[in-house]
Amino acid sequence: MTLTRWKLLESRYILRDQWVTLRADRCLTDSGISIDPYYVLESADFVHIVAFDEHDRILLIHQYRHGAQKISPELPCGMVDDGESPEDAIKRELLEETGCSAAGIIALPPFSTNPARYANTVFPFIGIDTQVTQAQSLDSGEEIEFEFISIPEVLRLIATGEIIQPLHISSIYQALIHRGLLTLHTVR
Amino acid sequence: MTLTRWKLLESRYILRDQWVTLRADRCLTDSGISIDPYYVLESADFVHIVAFDEHDRILLIHQYRHGAQKISPELPCGMVDDGESPEDAIKRELLEETGCSAAGIIALPPFSTNPARYANTVFPFIGIDTQVTQAQSLDSGEEIEFEFISIPEVLRLIATGEIIQPLHISSIYQALIHRGLLTLHTVR
Repeated sequence: MTLTRWKLLESRYILRDQWVTLRADRCLTDSGISIDPYYVLESADFVHIVAFDEHDRILLIHQYRHGAQKISPELPCGMVDDGESPEDAIKRELLEETGCSAAGIIALPPFSTNPARYANTVFPFIGIDTQVTQAQSLDSGEEIEFEFISIPEVLRLIATGEIIQPLHISSIYQALIHRGLLTLHTVR
Repeated sequence: MTLTRWKLLESRYILRDQWVTLRADRCLTDSGISIDPYYVLESADFVHIVAFDEHDRILLIHQYRHGAQKISPELPCGMVDDGESPEDAIKRELLEETGCSAAGIIALPPFSTNPARYANTVFPFIGIDTQVTQAQSLDSGEEIEFEFISIPEVLRLIATGEIIQPLHISSIYQALIHRGLLTLHTVR
């Protein structure tokens, strides 16, 4: 491939906040084209978990998501705190949002929130033998309901467009492939 | 479920641009908690396509993505122009980015870019019998290479973390399931 990275000439911050940091970059391509402004979103890294219970059901949480203005079924998820490892972050979020713990945690390969726009990393995990071990511990303003749902039902919620969070859809499929539950047919 | 939407009391725009529009909302939860600010990103709707050729290989494009600062293998994708249908938008993007056309186009269920933060919709498509019909037609500063890659190799690129765009990973899996190429084992 002959593709090359852009040269970053200057960054200007439009907003720096706990939740969203927006940067405008002035860049130069290898062929000398100026790209200005190119907007980049900075954020703490994201974590989420495809948490299976002993019956191979998947733990879904339901909460109001104000971006889409919808109650959205999702995986337990959150942001990595300063100085925290992604694995510690997802164990903490799982416990806070649902009161659940997983007997085993497996890391899936990290990906980008959106490589065109976001500078952060998403760390997806699989949880094995997940069960409720204590009460939820929600932040003020956070309202979360949760339930374990069978794999065929989760796939139905994706196929019908009821699960709308692509970061989580992607990891649900990857977790099922990793566990040998979803397999590729011989390609024609 | 007892979950309810937040009441939107006020919106304030921090940036309105062709590429990114960032809004700060003042909201009130049903239990009377004030959420202020809650940041929402507005954007034109996104489109992308899992375009298969006659040998069931998938069309991947390679381009530099300045969010992640990486050359990222992705699906042909873009934004819906004003007054354009999502299907017309993806046909246009496919032609511009790769010079390819698909003999058949199938719509998959729309989802959100990220329901927590984005207000827009992603329209994913499947393309059947895709082939090069003309030359690429790129914007200034746009450098895109493309190739058709076998399904096992695409799945390997996902499993090894080389494909990092979750909106596209999600749709690759959905397209394979829709076409009967990826199937769920009997759940234990």
